[in-house]
Amino acid sequence: MNLTAIALDAKDAYRILAKLSSTEKNNCLLACAEALVDGTERILAGNAEDMENGRKNNMAPGLLDRLLLTPQRIEAMAEGLRQLAALDDPIGEVLGMKKRPNGLMIGQMRVPLGVVGIIYEARPNVTADAFGLCFKTGNAVILKGGSDAIRSNIAVVEVLREAIGRCGLPQSALSLITDTSRETATEFMKMEGFLDVLIPRGGAGLIRSVVENAKVPVIETGTGNCHIYVDETADLDMAVEIIMNAKTQRVGVCNACESLVVHESVREKLLPKLSEKLAAAGVEIRADEEAAAFIGTAVPAKEEDWGREYLDYIISVKTVSSVEEAIDHINRYNTGHSEAIITNDYNNAVRFQQDVDAACVYVNASTRFTDGFEFGFGAEIGISTQKLHARGPMGLTALTTTKYIIQGSGQVRP
Amino acid sequence: MNLTAIALDAKDAYRILAKLSSTEKNNCLLACAEALVDGTERILAGNAEDMENGRKNNMAPGLLDRLLLTPQRIEAMAEGLRQLAALDDPIGEVLGMKKRPNGLMIGQMRVPLGVVGIIYEARPNVTADAFGLCFKTGNAVILKGGSDAIRSNIAVVEVLREAIGRCGLPQSALSLITDTSRETATEFMKMEGFLDVLIPRGGAGLIRSVVENAKVPVIETGTGNCHIYVDETADLDMAVEIIMNAKTQRVGVCNACESLVVHESVREKLLPKLSEKLAAAGVEIRADEEAAAFIGTAVPAKEEDWGREYLDYIISVKTVSSVEEAIDHINRYNTGHSEAIITNDYNNAVRFQQDVDAACVYVNASTRFTDGFEFGFGAEIGISTQKLHARGPMGLTALTTTKYIIQGSGQVRP
Repeated sequence: MNLTAIALDAKDAYRILAKLSSTEKNNCLLACAEALVDGTERILAGNAEDMENGRKNNMAPGLLDRLLLTPQRIEAMAEGLRQLAALDDPIGEVLGMKKRPNGLMIGQMRVPLGVVGIIYEARPNVTADAFGLCFKTGNAVILKGGSDAIRSNIAVVEVLREAIGRCGLPQSALSLITDTSRETATEFMKMEGFLDVLIPRGGAGLIRSVVENAKVPVIETGTGNCHIYVDETADLDMAVEIIMNAKTQRVGVCNACESLVVHESVREKLLPKLSEKLAAAGVEIRADEEAAAFIGTAVPAKEEDWGREYLDYIISVKTVSSVEEAIDHINRYNTGHSEAIITNDYNNAVRFQQDVDAACVYVNASTRFTDGFEFGFGAEIGISTQKLHARGPMGLTALTTTKYIIQGSGQVRP
Repeated sequence: MNLTAIALDAKDAYRILAKLSSTEKNNCLLACAEALVDGTERILAGNAEDMENGRKNNMAPGLLDRLLLTPQRIEAMAEGLRQLAALDDPIGEVLGMKKRPNGLMIGQMRVPLGVVGIIYEARPNVTADAFGLCFKTGNAVILKGGSDAIRSNIAVVEVLREAIGRCGLPQSALSLITDTSRETATEFMKMEGFLDVLIPRGGAGLIRSVVENAKVPVIETGTGNCHIYVDETADLDMAVEIIMNAKTQRVGVCNACESLVVHESVREKLLPKLSEKLAAAGVEIRADEEAAAFIGTAVPAKEEDWGREYLDYIISVKTVSSVEEAIDHINRYNTGHSEAIITNDYNNAVRFQQDVDAACVYVNASTRFTDGFEFGFGAEIGISTQKLHARGPMGLTALTTTKYIIQGSGQVRP
């Protein structure tokens, strides 16, 4: 495949998308939503081929379910595009203008990034979602999905590109790399000067491969080894409720709680009741010695447990004797995602929020809220665990940059 | 050299720096300024060795001048630190808090990046400057200077580290990689997980090498092929003044004008007068055929001239027949730095600022203003020509990130 040709076409498309009015973009998103629904049969036919291959290749049932498309799931993809159409357009906003002593007016205008690359795995709904997010923000997008979903992705992209064309807009606003080889993926990651940013959406392996190989700027969407620290003064009923929610409401997600850090003075009151509830929910508890004594059935925690993102019905329990020790433990083992303290102590709450190094630091709430929709962004590109450009849940503005606009009246530099 | 040990020490230092009050940081910066002045003799002795080596190695006079330190230049380094002490501290600021329907309060707190790596070339004044910028923003910094300035850099770093130590703060806030081999430089660029960001400060070759080799996030400080477009309705006296300023006020800098784009309808009135002035200032003019007819002595422009950053007394001249053609030409050949239009037409001014893809887009002012001090930031880390994280002149906030802080009262996710 000629990736350079695809990228140059995408850049041409971006020049046009960058100038579109919000109305033009929204109308096209609505047309794309309509086209997805109208194209249900074609998309299901492509998906049926992927499903057949998946079954032949003994794909795990969980992955097969993520690969499966149904009329309802296609309708959900369409609804996602309609919701994007309804959101405010961040492009063109001027973030204030300041007047310099020489009369120059200097402001920042929000503009698209340009050409966005997205590498993702087996879920074909990401195809429509990633396109919609990029299109709404005036970016052209080049998608590289996995081989497992290639027939589904081709069908979705064909349907969307036809709809884009019918709107009189360049189909290169959306491109799919149909060659699913590893070599092509690596080549894609090295397209410096062609891609403005590359976003991996998938598991830890994919993200590591992108960070390892990419020569273009990457926004890392990361793993979450999230901690909840129960402080000396915590409301223990609240602690139990929050921990149960953060651990068990959905276990396979990056904002789920993986580790409980508990102040030694509340062990005796908290752990018997909490461990009973966790056990009832099927959660295995891996505890240090100081905590294990207060837990019905605990597996001894090993050093490696402190750094683990289980994504499973498992939680580790670490005992500390101060908020400082809790903060140090968390800063040593966390992945910079979401951390919480349960406390009624003002100073400890402030210190925890200031000193814990993570994208999201909570007081008295569940880490499960780390999510673009829960934060009120109306859309989510992913959750960044890196520090540059975007950190935490990313809404549409993470797909934008700014440029300085300067209005003069003949000023020259003395 | 054990880069990992240096980076781990730097990370420990950052944990302490991140918690310092502004007063503690400012007092230390003032102590460092004092120490530089007091250490003048030691620093000059180190610099004398570098200068001797430079002369032995037939270093060019311009580079020798950039390498040279004098008591005045050391005083200027100290003054730079004093000015940083006087600036507002961006760390700890909370950028608003919003209340979600469930009562969660969500805000963003500005925090340090962590460990910043800076790779630079022969100018030893960057050593103190880079340290000061990072220290003020609570970051630990690891410097990798060039071999030409190694004795000067070692002396400056020793003096600063001693001063940091006297303030009771960790000397690992500032580290210098004294092994100036290429292998060590490459190893430094690949320290993912240890460096939060790497900033190259130097020429195009250095920046390309960093972008090519780095596995850590990079902030690219770039080259500038800056254009000035003189529109149909321009005030031609203003145009001449701005072009002369942007081209000749200082030719070796990234915000100098390298190319003039001129509307065909103003060629006849603008070019004879302008070319006379440019020639008098010793500027060579490389013009397309349509423009050459109106220029006293013009060298024919070749295709390659449109993409050149001369950094010299040379300017290219391109004729266009519309503002659209000017924008397309600029977007094709620019480096995304600074571009200007001279016009009195409202619509063309707006269109140029919206459609030109660059960090800074001017109407009726010199591109020479692209500079952190001129923009009112009080300090400058460099000028970013990339789109992620920071674009355009970078002040102290470019060395920071944010984290979400969330205040709850027991909220769990339904």
